[in-house]
Amino acid sequence: MTPPTLDDDALAAAGRVDRDRLWQRLMEIARFGATGRGGVNRQAFSAEDAAARRQMADWAASLGLHCLTDRIGNLYLRRPGRDPEAAPVMTGSHLDSQPTGGKFDGAYGVIAGLEALQAIAQAGLETARPIELVAWSNEEGSRFQPGCMGSGVFAGEMALADLLPLVDAEGISVEAALAGLFEATPGLPARPAAAPAAYIEAHIEQGPILEREGRTIGVVGGVQGMRWLTVEVTGEAAHAGTTPRAARRDALKAATRMVVALEAAFAEADPEDILRFTVGRFEVEPNSPNTVPARVFFTIDFRHPEAAAIEDLCGRIEGICRAQAQGCPVTVTTISGLPPCVFDPAVVATVRGAAERLALSHRDIMSGAGHDAMNLARLCPTGMIFVPCEAGVSHNEAENATPDDLAAGTRVLAASLVALANR
Amino acid sequence: MTPPTLDDDALAAAGRVDRDRLWQRLMEIARFGATGRGGVNRQAFSAEDAAARRQMADWAASLGLHCLTDRIGNLYLRRPGRDPEAAPVMTGSHLDSQPTGGKFDGAYGVIAGLEALQAIAQAGLETARPIELVAWSNEEGSRFQPGCMGSGVFAGEMALADLLPLVDAEGISVEAALAGLFEATPGLPARPAAAPAAYIEAHIEQGPILEREGRTIGVVGGVQGMRWLTVEVTGEAAHAGTTPRAARRDALKAATRMVVALEAAFAEADPEDILRFTVGRFEVEPNSPNTVPARVFFTIDFRHPEAAAIEDLCGRIEGICRAQAQGCPVTVTTISGLPPCVFDPAVVATVRGAAERLALSHRDIMSGAGHDAMNLARLCPTGMIFVPCEAGVSHNEAENATPDDLAAGTRVLAASLVALANR
Repeated sequence: MTPPTLDDDALAAAGRVDRDRLWQRLMEIARFGATGRGGVNRQAFSAEDAAARRQMADWAASLGLHCLTDRIGNLYLRRPGRDPEAAPVMTGSHLDSQPTGGKFDGAYGVIAGLEALQAIAQAGLETARPIELVAWSNEEGSRFQPGCMGSGVFAGEMALADLLPLVDAEGISVEAALAGLFEATPGLPARPAAAPAAYIEAHIEQGPILEREGRTIGVVGGVQGMRWLTVEVTGEAAHAGTTPRAARRDALKAATRMVVALEAAFAEADPEDILRFTVGRFEVEPNSPNTVPARVFFTIDFRHPEAAAIEDLCGRIEGICRAQAQGCPVTVTTISGLPPCVFDPAVVATVRGAAERLALSHRDIMSGAGHDAMNLARLCPTGMIFVPCEAGVSHNEAENATPDDLAAGTRVLAASLVALANR
Repeated sequence: MTPPTLDDDALAAAGRVDRDRLWQRLMEIARFGATGRGGVNRQAFSAEDAAARRQMADWAASLGLHCLTDRIGNLYLRRPGRDPEAAPVMTGSHLDSQPTGGKFDGAYGVIAGLEALQAIAQAGLETARPIELVAWSNEEGSRFQPGCMGSGVFAGEMALADLLPLVDAEGISVEAALAGLFEATPGLPARPAAAPAAYIEAHIEQGPILEREGRTIGVVGGVQGMRWLTVEVTGEAAHAGTTPRAARRDALKAATRMVVALEAAFAEADPEDILRFTVGRFEVEPNSPNTVPARVFFTIDFRHPEAAAIEDLCGRIEGICRAQAQGCPVTVTTISGLPPCVFDPAVVATVRGAAERLALSHRDIMSGAGHDAMNLARLCPTGMIFVPCEAGVSHNEAENATPDDLAAGTRVLAASLVALANR
């Protein structure tokens, strides 16, 4: 697809975005599951999640949007287009949160979509295609695993029948929990199956890059691929007081050398600071001050936007570890991985173009975290819009963003939606 | 004191040491608290400890030795000398064990002393000074802390009144537990206060040096000094997928660099492999695979035979850590320390001379572990004799030593005792 034109209609819609109305709705949604520390605990299919859904349905009614749902509980708010047969342009994100989550992760993309629809209406625009706002079910996956259930079922990546029997820590099934959600918005019609023409999701960055560089808009090119590995180093327990250095097989000494060598190798291979290499878990046995460590186990979280780079760089890990093992047997195991997700160039160009036309500072960026947009990208041309969040903090009650930045992202969203829906 | 002469009497006593009798008594003592895996669980002041004490008293009676005790439960077996007023030469070790201990740690020094006394008697020798064999109470400190209680009270380093109220994990006091010990050997007279003329203790090495070098006798010059430190590194938790390298303050990355730099600095400063540097405990928070570590805490166990080297080298730790901190605040804290213990040159020379005269391969060695001899060294000229133990393994049910090596150490002990007692 070629990028659509960002014409006067698109700019008119962006001009109608109301910063304060957007902020106020975000604060209203944040009351559902509000925590004492300014965050949100609104886990998937909970009473708080259902109450937020009820609020969305009320807003839809007041704005004259059609409210629809499906069997996994995704909530769709539809604004008709000139051509009732045309595939819709979709936008959205999720309303569920982490147990100690913030006000903006997910909720921003939903409320920004609502604000964009209202702005488009206030600009008096009729678009060729329908525009649908969606709140995807259970993106976080903190109560029911896996996450991204709603978008996964929608995109055909997950089977509903596999998900309904899954239970949370208290033994409550997805099916039972969903019943509570449906009760909050009784009688909603089912969304007729219709693949979208395009999907675009607004989200806080959840990282520090935009804030650090003073940019307002992140033009998201895709989502990094990820690989998780574990490294197990086996030494030999020995008395710290009596065992000479030459007679030791110290698993910690070897493992710390491995981490330092891996950090150095990847820093050298990545002068532009694109890859993400993290040793987050590191465990020692017997972990006693006066015993030479017999075993160390550590994890590697590796991310990069390019599949070939993941393959190449992760392929070097075992050799680097072995070179530092000093006689300790070492086992490197790949636990899981996700290939990079590359968004549609035309949608990405639409977002970039909207930021340009609106004179907003921007930069291309890759998402480090996973999003519902990854599932949608398998179904239709997809893109995302990032806005800065304070200090890059997310999945945390302290999560914060400024009303100006949130409104700027919403203006880019409104303009992009009009452009895509008129194409 | 000048080293005593190793005359024919000393050699005659050594010649009467009976390898098989020594081994058999070691195996008999090992029955008290024997574990399924060939080890010993004979913790201080337990029923098993009391039973071993009873066995010692029985052997003393059969050998015509005088049995004495004191209020902390040390057991003394005395062989009179020609001069009843002369200060005694003492030897011994301990009968208590770790919860999963071996057959030789402690028990060897007690049974070797008994064998030496029997050998001296069988050689028909009368020594100028009395010789006393002692089994010190609670050396291990695994049930009641601190360890080395018996020798600590004897040497005036600990006050009995402070120790008696101390309780084990089940709330049983030292005083109550001691009552069970005394019941096993009722009516023993109290040892009259008399400072020893010298003390010499036989022990398994608990390290790999003698075995690795194929030497039979370790001529122990003293006990290494020790310093324990902790290092706390504070970083900042961050999302592993979204936080660029340049924006991270990774406590684990900094801490692993510190460990590697410390290992390198101390290896360079110590080409002869004398110091002992161990990072045995290493803890990470939040220890989650996809979160950049916010905090690392690790311990340093540092040992060296020379006080000045401990002062100098430990003084470098903080600077080395700061140089690798990469913006992470770091706190280095000294938790505890023990100065090196240097044994009496004349006693050390006596042991070396006995090994020479008996044509046993030997080397000078420092003890890496603490022993009762450290307390005795504050009271009188002191030395120790080490024999090899299999693979250096100790504080372990797999602890092992050969009958030949154990007998060789006992021959050196018998000759040294005669020489010291005739001086």
